[in-house]
Amino acid sequence: MKPVCLVMGAGAGIGGNVGKRFAAGGYHTVLCRRSDEAGLQQLVSDIQAAGGSATGYLLNAIEEGSIEERVSAVEAEIGPIEVVIYNLGAQIGDRTLADTSYKAFEMGWRLATFGLFRMASAVCPKMEARGKGAILVTSATAAVRGNAGQHSHAAAMGGRRMLCQTLNAQFASKGIHIAHILVDGMVDAPDTLGRMLGADVFQQLRAAHGGEQDGLMLPEEMAETYFHVAHQHRSCWTHELDLRPYSELAWWNH
Amino acid sequence: MKPVCLVMGAGAGIGGNVGKRFAAGGYHTVLCRRSDEAGLQQLVSDIQAAGGSATGYLLNAIEEGSIEERVSAVEAEIGPIEVVIYNLGAQIGDRTLADTSYKAFEMGWRLATFGLFRMASAVCPKMEARGKGAILVTSATAAVRGNAGQHSHAAAMGGRRMLCQTLNAQFASKGIHIAHILVDGMVDAPDTLGRMLGADVFQQLRAAHGGEQDGLMLPEEMAETYFHVAHQHRSCWTHELDLRPYSELAWWNH
Amino acid sequence: MKPVCLVMGAGAGIGGNVGKRFAAGGYHTVLCRRSDEAGLQQLVSDIQAAGGSATGYLLNAIEEGSIEERVSAVEAEIGPIEVVIYNLGAQIGDRTLADTSYKAFEMGWRLATFGLFRMASAVCPKMEARGKGAILVTSATAAVRGNAGQHSHAAAMGGRRMLCQTLNAQFASKGIHIAHILVDGMVDAPDTLGRMLGADVFQQLRAAHGGEQDGLMLPEEMAETYFHVAHQHRSCWTHELDLRPYSELAWWNH
Amino acid sequence: MKPVCLVMGAGAGIGGNVGKRFAAGGYHTVLCRRSDEAGLQQLVSDIQAAGGSATGYLLNAIEEGSIEERVSAVEAEIGPIEVVIYNLGAQIGDRTLADTSYKAFEMGWRLATFGLFRMASAVCPKMEARGKGAILVTSATAAVRGNAGQHSHAAAMGGRRMLCQTLNAQFASKGIHIAHILVDGMVDAPDTLGRMLGADVFQQLRAAHGGEQDGLMLPEEMAETYFHVAHQHRSCWTHELDLRPYSELAWWNH
Repeated sequence: MKPVCLVMGAGAGIGGNVGKRFAAGGYHTVLCRRSDEAGLQQLVSDIQAAGGSATGYLLNAIEEGSIEERVSAVEAEIGPIEVVIYNLGAQIGDRTLADTSYKAFEMGWRLATFGLFRMASAVCPKMEARGKGAILVTSATAAVRGNAGQHSHAAAMGGRRMLCQTLNAQFASKGIHIAHILVDGMVDAPDTLGRMLGADVFQQLRAAHGGEQDGLMLPEEMAETYFHVAHQHRSCWTHELDLRPYSELAWWNH
Repeated sequence: MKPVCLVMGAGAGIGGNVGKRFAAGGYHTVLCRRSDEAGLQQLVSDIQAAGGSATGYLLNAIEEGSIEERVSAVEAEIGPIEVVIYNLGAQIGDRTLADTSYKAFEMGWRLATFGLFRMASAVCPKMEARGKGAILVTSATAAVRGNAGQHSHAAAMGGRRMLCQTLNAQFASKGIHIAHILVDGMVDAPDTLGRMLGADVFQQLRAAHGGEQDGLMLPEEMAETYFHVAHQHRSCWTHELDLRPYSELAWWNH
Repeated sequence: MKPVCLVMGAGAGIGGNVGKRFAAGGYHTVLCRRSDEAGLQQLVSDIQAAGGSATGYLLNAIEEGSIEERVSAVEAEIGPIEVVIYNLGAQIGDRTLADTSYKAFEMGWRLATFGLFRMASAVCPKMEARGKGAILVTSATAAVRGNAGQHSHAAAMGGRRMLCQTLNAQFASKGIHIAHILVDGMVDAPDTLGRMLGADVFQQLRAAHGGEQDGLMLPEEMAETYFHVAHQHRSCWTHELDLRPYSELAWWNH
Repeated sequence: MKPVCLVMGAGAGIGGNVGKRFAAGGYHTVLCRRSDEAGLQQLVSDIQAAGGSATGYLLNAIEEGSIEERVSAVEAEIGPIEVVIYNLGAQIGDRTLADTSYKAFEMGWRLATFGLFRMASAVCPKMEARGKGAILVTSATAAVRGNAGQHSHAAAMGGRRMLCQTLNAQFASKGIHIAHILVDGMVDAPDTLGRMLGADVFQQLRAAHGGEQDGLMLPEEMAETYFHVAHQHRSCWTHELDLRPYSELAWWNH
């Protein structure tokens, strides 16, 4: 039986590509995303066409019980979850305080912080009982510095980073590898960056920085680092690392 | 008319003592706390007996509209709020993940993170219109490192720190001084530390570290730093500082 | 006998103004700087004219034994050093790696890092024996992020920050207050910023940001925070704080 | 012609094992260390016996010109240096300030900070001209927090970390990947940890934490992460990551 890699937030960017990488590496990948059944099935088909094994679910992570039930069902019906990719973000673009509704602020927390807490509450006891597991969390610059207009996103990601450290402090010695992957740059991802910017701006951005210029982060290449981190020997685990294009300044330089 | 200092979380520790300091420094202090009418009135009386001016309110910050209405009422009935002391915490002691309920996790966020967001949403537009104001936020070690058992607290405080940076990025240049005061040690405060530890343990702690040993942070002395920060010249504002007893190791050393 | 405040790097900016503030607060201030005898005597005269007490010395901190001998002489001839202001910097402007000579790199370390180590080696045993003392270190953004062109400065200041933490870990519990004051903005200081930029550019900068705009840090106002920190009650000491003009973005935002 | 990987500090721990990994991955590895000709030749023989290619040099990095001349000679005689592993440390164990001589403090800087600056000065122009290269720097917890007794080490490593950020700010966009690898735990390395602790203590430590317990970091496993980082796609480079055994608390938790 293949080990299971559960991806929360499996769009055409980081989530989907990390899913593909783990499938290629011998995992059964369970892909979860909120919408776009066609996109989801495409990912599953791509994986299967490449000789891998995958299942897809539409799942609204905000909904009560949704994450918890999916974890239970996967464990019961597919197999033990060895790796979780927590890839749900809350980036809604820059908004002034006046333009950030209570609802938007709460939504950021529900998706990015509380969702991870619920996931950990569901999956850590199982991983702890087995003495192994990994939870890789896709994070963002906003986890380490609050910038103008990032009220919701920074609060959510900053809370999430501290949650990751707390989980790590409790569970690393139980064999659960928690990794906080700080994505400090723009990802060449139509489902997230593309949607946020709109098709036209996204194409301009790709023309200016993408392609051979390698100025947009390629999710299929990022996936190599996710896979590496999940397979580090337990005598030398990484808890936090950053990723950015060679051509971009690090967050602390701008 | 005296400028107003609004204290959210005015117990017998930091909140009450900072309130007293601002009252002594010429402010009308508005003290808000969730419970203990008698304790609240004692604080008001103490301030008045010392020649100062204060008003007290019982207020459940979790309740919808509670913070927002208090801000409106104070501005309408007492005067412009020049300084906010946001002193609501969410420390519930160390609990394993299994022992941290969804409700406890959410409560931490509601008090420490969302409450500050609501406060800022209510008060920043008024301060911005006047071109001045200060929001001093009492923070904790958990804002910068997640430790075992701190799932709720660290997520809440880490989110709050990033929110403070975001508020600062938008509002400092409008004349609003946001300060994040990292309290990295135990405060000699019966209403918070005392309640968390229980009377007996608290007295043992006081015997071992308090009094002339100065190993517990004296809230009336901490208040001097709050007052100083709120009155720094605007050409040289502090956004973040730490406070701890001389006799304690800094958080990064243990 | 007045307590002594020893200022290393007493120009017309932070050093000189902090010296004045401590003199006004009852200290005998010992001012040390490398050159400009006239400027030094002007500071001494200003302090005396204001009713304070001061002595000035020209001192090349790079020179072997210079700091050590000054500390000994002050203790022997004037009195116990209660506060050290270590204000020697190593900012030489932005230079590419190719334009940063080995000598320039080493000079940064000698002034900013090794000089503080020598000062601490000389003064800490005396402070420890007396059970009290304070060393306030003027630091810079380069201590927490390396930016392009800052090879020498960032290496020196980053090393210094870690040295401050190490000193604090050993000496805080002995009553020695080490504070690392992160100056994250341009100081209205003719002797340092003025010299680095040249008179013309400095005047343009003053016209654009100084005066009533308060966009340049006023050293006489910064001095208030130095004085406050040095006098915090030992139950609540600050080890690190930042200072910047309200109108400037924090380093992490640009 | 094979690309060259130049290892500064090639003992039986991280340096030697990283060298082996790069040799196995197709590099000609140049191993440099200060002493122990026999140990050096053993490493070279091991690599050759495994089908790899290596050269070894005894080199005192402190000595004027030593690093610079080795870089020139390797480029002239062997080939273009694609990867530098800068693995020279300065850990001398915990010493009080009184027990840290000026010489020890300076030695830390010369090995850990100035040595890297000299290496970068020698190799970056060549890498920049070729539009590619990587410098992987082995770092330590002392780079991010100064602990008691770490006066020399923390100052050296803290300066080095800021230097790495400065190098990165100038050279990443030129195709040079600078990575700062924070080793936050004890490495199962007889030449460094073993020598520092002494043979007996080291064996006790191994018995208590090593072997199947995986509580000591295995340098041959750490080498996998070094190799991975050096081969990340340039659209998603890591500048900083930490490594520690699963069974150890992160530095911020103790």
